Amino acid sequence: MWTLDETSFDPSKQRHKETIFTIGNGYLSTRGAFEEGHSGESRATFVHGVFDAAPIVFTELANAPDWLSLQVVLDGEKFSLAQGEVLEYHRQLDLRTGVLTRRVRWKSPNGKIAELRFERFASLHDEHLLALRCQVTPEFEGEIEWRAALNAHVDNEGLRHWNVTRQGRKNGQTVWLETITRQSSITLALAMRLLSSHSAAFDYWDAEGQPTLCQRVPARPGQTITLTKFVGIATSRDSDHPLVLALESAARPQGWEAALQAQTQAWAREWEQCEVSIAGDEEAELAVRFSLFQLLIAAPRHDNRVNIGAKTLSGFGYRGHAFWDTEIFMLPVFTFTAPHIARNLLEYRHLTLPAAREKARQAGYEGAWFAWESADTGEEVTPTWVPDFHDKKKLARVWTGDLAIHISADVAYGAWQYWRITGQDDWYARYGAELVLDTAKFFASRAEWLEERGGYGYRDVIGPDEYHDHVDNNAYTNILARWNIETALETLTWLEHHHPQRAAELKETLNLTPERLAHWQDVAARMILNVRPDGLIEQFDGFFRLKDVNLADYEPRTKSMHEIFGIEAANHYQVLKQPDVLMALYLLPERFTPEQVRINYDYYTPRTDHTYGSSLGPSMQAIVACQMGDVDEAYEHFLHAARADLRDVRGNAGDGIHAASAGGIWQAVVFGFGGLRIHPDGSWETHPRLPSHWKNLAFRFTLRGQQHLVTVGEA
Amino acid sequence: MWTLDETSFDPSKQRHKETIFTIGNGYLSTRGAFEEGHSGESRATFVHGVFDAAPIVFTELANAPDWLSLQVVLDGEKFSLAQGEVLEYHRQLDLRTGVLTRRVRWKSPNGKIAELRFERFASLHDEHLLALRCQVTPEFEGEIEWRAALNAHVDNEGLRHWNVTRQGRKNGQTVWLETITRQSSITLALAMRLLSSHSAAFDYWDAEGQPTLCQRVPARPGQTITLTKFVGIATSRDSDHPLVLALESAARPQGWEAALQAQTQAWAREWEQCEVSIAGDEEAELAVRFSLFQLLIAAPRHDNRVNIGAKTLSGFGYRGHAFWDTEIFMLPVFTFTAPHIARNLLEYRHLTLPAAREKARQAGYEGAWFAWESADTGEEVTPTWVPDFHDKKKLARVWTGDLAIHISADVAYGAWQYWRITGQDDWYARYGAELVLDTAKFFASRAEWLEERGGYGYRDVIGPDEYHDHVDNNAYTNILARWNIETALETLTWLEHHHPQRAAELKETLNLTPERLAHWQDVAARMILNVRPDGLIEQFDGFFRLKDVNLADYEPRTKSMHEIFGIEAANHYQVLKQPDVLMALYLLPERFTPEQVRINYDYYTPRTDHTYGSSLGPSMQAIVACQMGDVDEAYEHFLHAARADLRDVRGNAGDGIHAASAGGIWQAVVFGFGGLRIHPDGSWETHPRLPSHWKNLAFRFTLRGQQHLVTVGEA
Repeated sequence: MWTLDETSFDPSKQRHKETIFTIGNGYLSTRGAFEEGHSGESRATFVHGVFDAAPIVFTELANAPDWLSLQVVLDGEKFSLAQGEVLEYHRQLDLRTGVLTRRVRWKSPNGKIAELRFERFASLHDEHLLALRCQVTPEFEGEIEWRAALNAHVDNEGLRHWNVTRQGRKNGQTVWLETITRQSSITLALAMRLLSSHSAAFDYWDAEGQPTLCQRVPARPGQTITLTKFVGIATSRDSDHPLVLALESAARPQGWEAALQAQTQAWAREWEQCEVSIAGDEEAELAVRFSLFQLLIAAPRHDNRVNIGAKTLSGFGYRGHAFWDTEIFMLPVFTFTAPHIARNLLEYRHLTLPAAREKARQAGYEGAWFAWESADTGEEVTPTWVPDFHDKKKLARVWTGDLAIHISADVAYGAWQYWRITGQDDWYARYGAELVLDTAKFFASRAEWLEERGGYGYRDVIGPDEYHDHVDNNAYTNILARWNIETALETLTWLEHHHPQRAAELKETLNLTPERLAHWQDVAARMILNVRPDGLIEQFDGFFRLKDVNLADYEPRTKSMHEIFGIEAANHYQVLKQPDVLMALYLLPERFTPEQVRINYDYYTPRTDHTYGSSLGPSMQAIVACQMGDVDEAYEHFLHAARADLRDVRGNAGDGIHAASAGGIWQAVVFGFGGLRIHPDGSWETHPRLPSHWKNLAFRFTLRGQQHLVTVGEA
Repeated sequence: MWTLDETSFDPSKQRHKETIFTIGNGYLSTRGAFEEGHSGESRATFVHGVFDAAPIVFTELANAPDWLSLQVVLDGEKFSLAQGEVLEYHRQLDLRTGVLTRRVRWKSPNGKIAELRFERFASLHDEHLLALRCQVTPEFEGEIEWRAALNAHVDNEGLRHWNVTRQGRKNGQTVWLETITRQSSITLALAMRLLSSHSAAFDYWDAEGQPTLCQRVPARPGQTITLTKFVGIATSRDSDHPLVLALESAARPQGWEAALQAQTQAWAREWEQCEVSIAGDEEAELAVRFSLFQLLIAAPRHDNRVNIGAKTLSGFGYRGHAFWDTEIFMLPVFTFTAPHIARNLLEYRHLTLPAAREKARQAGYEGAWFAWESADTGEEVTPTWVPDFHDKKKLARVWTGDLAIHISADVAYGAWQYWRITGQDDWYARYGAELVLDTAKFFASRAEWLEERGGYGYRDVIGPDEYHDHVDNNAYTNILARWNIETALETLTWLEHHHPQRAAELKETLNLTPERLAHWQDVAARMILNVRPDGLIEQFDGFFRLKDVNLADYEPRTKSMHEIFGIEAANHYQVLKQPDVLMALYLLPERFTPEQVRINYDYYTPRTDHTYGSSLGPSMQAIVACQMGDVDEAYEHFLHAARADLRDVRGNAGDGIHAASAGGIWQAVVFGFGGLRIHPDGSWETHPRLPSHWKNLAFRFTLRGQQHLVTVGEA
């Protein structure tokens, strides 16, 4: 399965459909809204790094001026699915080529019938180029009018970010628009170039912020007319002359076929790196390919100043802010299949080190404490307060920006894993090592000696399971912090051997004195880990004393246990929003025995809100279930993850793709069912545990520059 | 002086100028932005009652689709003050007719010179009609293009409130636009009809949300061409068919001259009610006429479902929310000069009684507690939290919505004063009495018996002086509450004599049992008033124990004492944001001796932040100073009020007219310098105290249906 299909039009599902029919090229993405518009749509194009100030959330990706706009007027009646009659309808996203097609046979209110075929793509070959084609085959005699526009009058759920600076017509078939964000002063330019199958001259409407070209064409029954719209796009982040770049990009393609061919070839190369196939399970195969596609279109190929938001570039959710979702859920996909992208994402963290240091400093700590939510500068942009869902006069305090310290270890883990998998020593010496060392410095400074426990630990934190906040000694945090400090010490030793100059430089700039390093040793050695003699790990101090509940007693339910208990009361139950201890066991498999994984798996699995908790959970749960040999249960969790976007089982896919889940789906297939394991020496093996109906699983990955193809099951 | 003039163009002052060049007709107002637009402008039209949801402030007047838009293209170059050269410039608002005129002689970048004359008004004769005329006299030979549009792409400082529902062209010279607010679903329709001095056909640009008509006209040196733009406007609040009403309104005028004549006549009638003249002081005369004009254009003549916001309809400040500013500062102007308007404003309060009762009920009280900030429904819309000015990650709690209970007495006072001045007994029986009774019920229920004081009082309130919050027994609040309860008891007695059926009805619906009325008597009789034996009133419990400061020590200063001390610390000083005790003495003159006023005036005047405290203060201070015979000091405060808008001495006139100050300016002239006093028996007298350079003061007022003209000074 390579295609996503929608065969009938249901207006009530369009927000969801707009998300899953998002197209993009790693520079920008455009949601699957209709060219002609539709009431209630969440039309949006997001360009990486184009942030602008917004209330409450501090900054958000600004919905860019609309490039899609195309009205088709059939004998005086505007084509619109809101009126007339939809006789046939088929929308299809081809994951292999990144082309979105919509075919509609439509009868106007006055009874005029025509077939309209729309195609669009964001060029992967030339990231400043967008292409759209419309073909109309009328079944009547009369006139058809094209009205193609660029449109600056867009907003982010009501908030406008753009001022128009200038606009104009370059030549008969080309117009342009230049805009600037209101607060961050980023210039964005669009140029539109039209190619029509008909030679009639275009009229120009110079309406403020909406340069429009119109053409009237005779309609003959059965005779197809075609309009191609090339749009060039560039910002002041890319060029000192974005308008010039936009105009050049729009002018470049020879025509639709040539542009499409370049697109198809670029995507073929992309899939060669990461293709996954699953024989015997079309849904699973489509889900993993769809996940890869969504990650690939959001992945910056030529920009290390940006990251991937929790909802990619596909919706307004989380405003384009990046979380630990990147390093723990998405990054492995790139590290294993497209290391050049993984590198950009990690270099973004390196660029935001000044902000991470400032965050630590302001809180009274040393080293680098990365923002829980990170945007353009790396400054913390987690909202501190959000309007209460139930009472708009009240505000709810959001604590993750203050307490979720594990983000620093997650970033370090991503950098270290990248090094381990790619073997890029020079990169690690230049970038990764500093990330690992400076986060270790943070964890050593944030650790407290807890006399009554006889060890070091972290009080007042939030771990991966966000049903519990203000907890002490979250096991995930402590385990990862210890790993981070130990890995930093190993990194320093490695640097001293292989890159002594860089080692000296980092010791100097990070002030890594012998006393400090001795303290690191001590903190790591005496870190509180909350491990019972039988191997069971207590998620945080006192977790086992919380009220225990049987989640089955609450079934069937349609909301999260958080909603059922209430935000405050959820703290008092042994119910998890997502795996927490199990995440640490998954990330650091060398540190735990299979028996210990088993006892923790058995304890925490029935206490986790898999269905309505975090969308980050099911894929991870699937992997650990695979490791436990519970393939049926693993598959159930996997399907739940697979359906988060494709079937909108959580009801919030309209806000954008669940990017962490998308990354988790790939990890579940490769590390879970495929059972891929990389050993510290760089060798690898697989322990496949396929669901019984999977006939064959094949996937590719790249280890230390070498691509491997794994095939499991029937030939 | 009847005109406001601007004789040179200074882009840095445009936000201020846009406010003071606001025009309106009591149905809507339009800020003085330029027809052709200007970078950084705060272009806005506000229509009474057209509220829509907004974050933090709950609801705000939605900036309506723009009716002004008119581009003039001179031989291919768009007229714009941002380029070319301004050779001559004169903008004038004629307060006598409500017509705003701008004359510009402009040289284009290519050297084409033309004189452009723009005139506009919002018809007072037909409140659904707006009129704009542009006359261009070129000094070159070539072509001039008009582009006149309606524009839905507007916002409230970034927030969009409108969706376009439909648009179209009715005939060659008429186009229309229908829009709907996104949350409150209010439909607003605009229709534009053009009359040109030239016969060339208009082109139509059907750009989404921007229907535009364009006409190309030959330019001949010295030959003036003219375009008149009539715009009809209506909403679903006015009519079930707002588009029909908008189209009819635009179609109605015969032409510019006829419409202007109707406008001039309507304004002449308006001024006949309230004209004030001051010989010997042009600035003072202009200030009071300007204040009257600004109040008149914001005053609803045909709608009792709306009130006047603290910034009228002239800016984004306070979002169109109404405060006690209405009853205490603005309402007297209408009660004394235009009772039909005062009645609408008070009936709005009557209509919002259900919300006021609900507010009291939710807080655990009885009766009617009016919203501190009131919008469409009367629900409390004071923001509870606002972003901290210094640290955007923090929030500051706004307490007025929770603690400023005096608003209920202010509303009652306004209703009672209206009755006393107009003598409209039937109206009082039907509306006013219920306002007075139900607010009294609230004050009786909110009062606490304070054992240690041996009296009733109010703990945890905010009085007029907002530098001090969470205070006990604010004297203004307690004095007004006692007045409210006593007046309610008198009202009930009056009703029983003159409207026994209404008395019975209100006793039934408000549950005014003998026990309750006895409790009212008791509360009023034993209210704590904080009066010392020498007559000095303590502003609230413990005020005299606060730190005393000599405000002169802080001069010269450029910010409020609130900013200098800090919000929290300001509570600890004997420094007032605005008169507080003095306000009570002003409102209830029968209850205090001149000696008592004097001792309080002498105490509080030097402790009040006149310059940078509340804009509500200076006019009131001026009145009390007049009563004390300090005419020079009174005049100084008066000038400070007069310049708040005209000279922008507070630097915030760009947010909109200081409406309370405008009302206060009129009160200062009439009750302060003019010394008008109305006695309980309906007789009146004046005790004029004119500044020495005022040769003559004349003003009009209406008492019990009879207009009076007062002339003081030289003939």
